[in-house]
Amino acid sequence: MINIGILGFGVVGSGVAEVIAMNREKLERHLEQPIQVKKILDVRDFEEGPFSGLLTKDSEEFFDDSDISVVVETIGGVGIAYEFTSRALKQGKSVVTSNKELVATHGVELLQLAKDNHCAYFFEAAVGGGIPIIRPLHRCLAANRITKIAGIVNGTTNYILTQMESSDMDFSAALSRAQLKGYAESNPSADIDGIDAQRKIAILSSIAMNGIYIDPDQIHTEGIKNISSEDMSYARALGAKIKLLAIYKSYKEGSCEIIVAPHLLDRSEPISVADGVFNAIAVDGNALGPSMFYGKGAGKLATASAVVADVLDAALHQSKNAHIMSWTHPQQTVVKPFEEMHVKALIRLKGDVDINKYRSLFPNMQIKPVVSAVRNETALVVGQEGTLTEKMLAEATSQIKEFIALIRVYN
Amino acid sequence: MINIGILGFGVVGSGVAEVIAMNREKLERHLEQPIQVKKILDVRDFEEGPFSGLLTKDSEEFFDDSDISVVVETIGGVGIAYEFTSRALKQGKSVVTSNKELVATHGVELLQLAKDNHCAYFFEAAVGGGIPIIRPLHRCLAANRITKIAGIVNGTTNYILTQMESSDMDFSAALSRAQLKGYAESNPSADIDGIDAQRKIAILSSIAMNGIYIDPDQIHTEGIKNISSEDMSYARALGAKIKLLAIYKSYKEGSCEIIVAPHLLDRSEPISVADGVFNAIAVDGNALGPSMFYGKGAGKLATASAVVADVLDAALHQSKNAHIMSWTHPQQTVVKPFEEMHVKALIRLKGDVDINKYRSLFPNMQIKPVVSAVRNETALVVGQEGTLTEKMLAEATSQIKEFIALIRVYN
Repeated sequence: MINIGILGFGVVGSGVAEVIAMNREKLERHLEQPIQVKKILDVRDFEEGPFSGLLTKDSEEFFDDSDISVVVETIGGVGIAYEFTSRALKQGKSVVTSNKELVATHGVELLQLAKDNHCAYFFEAAVGGGIPIIRPLHRCLAANRITKIAGIVNGTTNYILTQMESSDMDFSAALSRAQLKGYAESNPSADIDGIDAQRKIAILSSIAMNGIYIDPDQIHTEGIKNISSEDMSYARALGAKIKLLAIYKSYKEGSCEIIVAPHLLDRSEPISVADGVFNAIAVDGNALGPSMFYGKGAGKLATASAVVADVLDAALHQSKNAHIMSWTHPQQTVVKPFEEMHVKALIRLKGDVDINKYRSLFPNMQIKPVVSAVRNETALVVGQEGTLTEKMLAEATSQIKEFIALIRVYN
Repeated sequence: MINIGILGFGVVGSGVAEVIAMNREKLERHLEQPIQVKKILDVRDFEEGPFSGLLTKDSEEFFDDSDISVVVETIGGVGIAYEFTSRALKQGKSVVTSNKELVATHGVELLQLAKDNHCAYFFEAAVGGGIPIIRPLHRCLAANRITKIAGIVNGTTNYILTQMESSDMDFSAALSRAQLKGYAESNPSADIDGIDAQRKIAILSSIAMNGIYIDPDQIHTEGIKNISSEDMSYARALGAKIKLLAIYKSYKEGSCEIIVAPHLLDRSEPISVADGVFNAIAVDGNALGPSMFYGKGAGKLATASAVVADVLDAALHQSKNAHIMSWTHPQQTVVKPFEEMHVKALIRLKGDVDINKYRSLFPNMQIKPVVSAVRNETALVVGQEGTLTEKMLAEATSQIKEFIALIRVYN
């Protein structure tokens, strides 16, 4: 009998209990033994339901239960979740989580704690919700050097951008609709400012770097607040969509560049199929070439699907941590400074601007005008083929008095 | 030290040796020990190369080498490959393969042999080339009942169909180009008749059915030989592409329907992004919802990437077969008879046909005319929402004297 304990009975935590109940027969065939949720710890009061008998508010009772071998942490945040995760791992209990903030912040230490205590710390659900991406990246692509990851990893912002595109809404109207639908929180900052995407790409980058920990704070991050209807018109004119992309690139072993920002994404790119709350993550490996993973990036049962897969893996590998990754802090920074990154961008200028007077700001590069439905603006694409750095771009836009805004072009 | 033996030094076999050489450092970090190719068995003569010293034509020498713990079988077919695979498994050596024919034919027996001898039989590369699909299906989606799989799983036919669509070629011209480019063999039957796709969906279906073995011969299979330029015109008119789809559906536990045939696929379907030699596989789970996996379905290094991932997994789980699937023959047939399957199809009729005279052949269903650039034909879509069975469709088309051809519509 595999006994599970769940920490936090919110959306994902209750989804885990539901998925185990719903697909119990399949799970038990996979495990070759019975599985049950033994206890659920949550300090809140809940209405009567099928799992009421398992709920406890007493953490001592939860942690004293020696039957529990796998703990699901779906509390979120880095406070009590961190404390409880550490405590479970120190007891030799494997911990499975969907908590991207905790993994991105304390991953090094928690993975080490798991290793030291011969148990596992798994977090498939922390990135891409239900989409298999952590395990494929770590195991299925283990024979590859990962050269690029480009992901639409935040469903809230993708829903907002899709609404802006398809219903011709402005940002605030699209945000309101997302909140009404339950896709955005009342305080939407973590999503719309790109913080959630930043944590997720930090986790994927740490795996792609073979366990060299990437601190989310090192990642240049821009949200989608400033995306306008005019930007959408330019996207249409270019046969592109606007997506919040989290991008990791590694041109040589041991070094990488990472950014989270809205980008113009050509409609021929496979990940551009991800609209609404869907996520898609492109991964390039030096043997595999390009690949892509697509699915629901959030939602109760989809996220629970990934958590329960981790539970099975943890249950099948009790007391062995073969195959479990470990992370280390880098001895020197491996993330390229933002200013040195190459960029291709669409810049928007007020009125009818003769770009020749600014030619010297863009040495050795083509400047391509973009014709769109937007009036009284000049729009130009600059920075083809690694000719333009972020530093040059920032200096140029500060010197162009007609400058309105820029949006990066994915390539 | 993990010692690998490779059976068959063809495209994939040599790719495996190359990937191990290319990414050795990463592999050894993953394994926490050194890895090397110890011997390569092939009866053919090869030009001098970096692996010449490892080649042997003597199978006794190969199988007597007790250092070898993981055997890569990249011979193909069900003759000598079957014999060598059995022999290695009986020695307790894990076997990793890209041989879909062998897995689809003798999977039950070989998986049992692995289990009996406490080793593994892995075949990630047998479906989708380098795309992680077997392991995600078996492990990452282990908490799901798999309700649908729809895959573009054969790169040769997809290349041909993409050429027909984008360059307005007919089938034979597109096939010739595929042969010229090395994407189709001189005897292309296994690909263009759908046999390769049939084997692959049989493997995926066996996993989706939780190990109930699906015999490829039970799968209704049609190739792409009869796809014409006119069909492509209708696809354009409908905003669709024509793709050879391998489809598994399960409406209830323990029963499924499977088909391999060209289909009209709406361009809004995520898998429709797979053009040319790329593959894409959509998977729906009852917890996860829709998901999709995309990448190179063939090619030396891409396929080798999947083989080497399996090698690592086998090496890390020596003498334990936890997590390794087993298959059993079904006690009664689980595949729904083809005649009873529901279908939606575009039917093409010669000349300007008043469909009302055939109304009784399509009871209780809408008949939607399709306007296209094709002249002197009437085209109709029939069979919305489960109203039409394959049997009814076959009877109807046999009674319509103007009938030219039909193509199924994916939905």
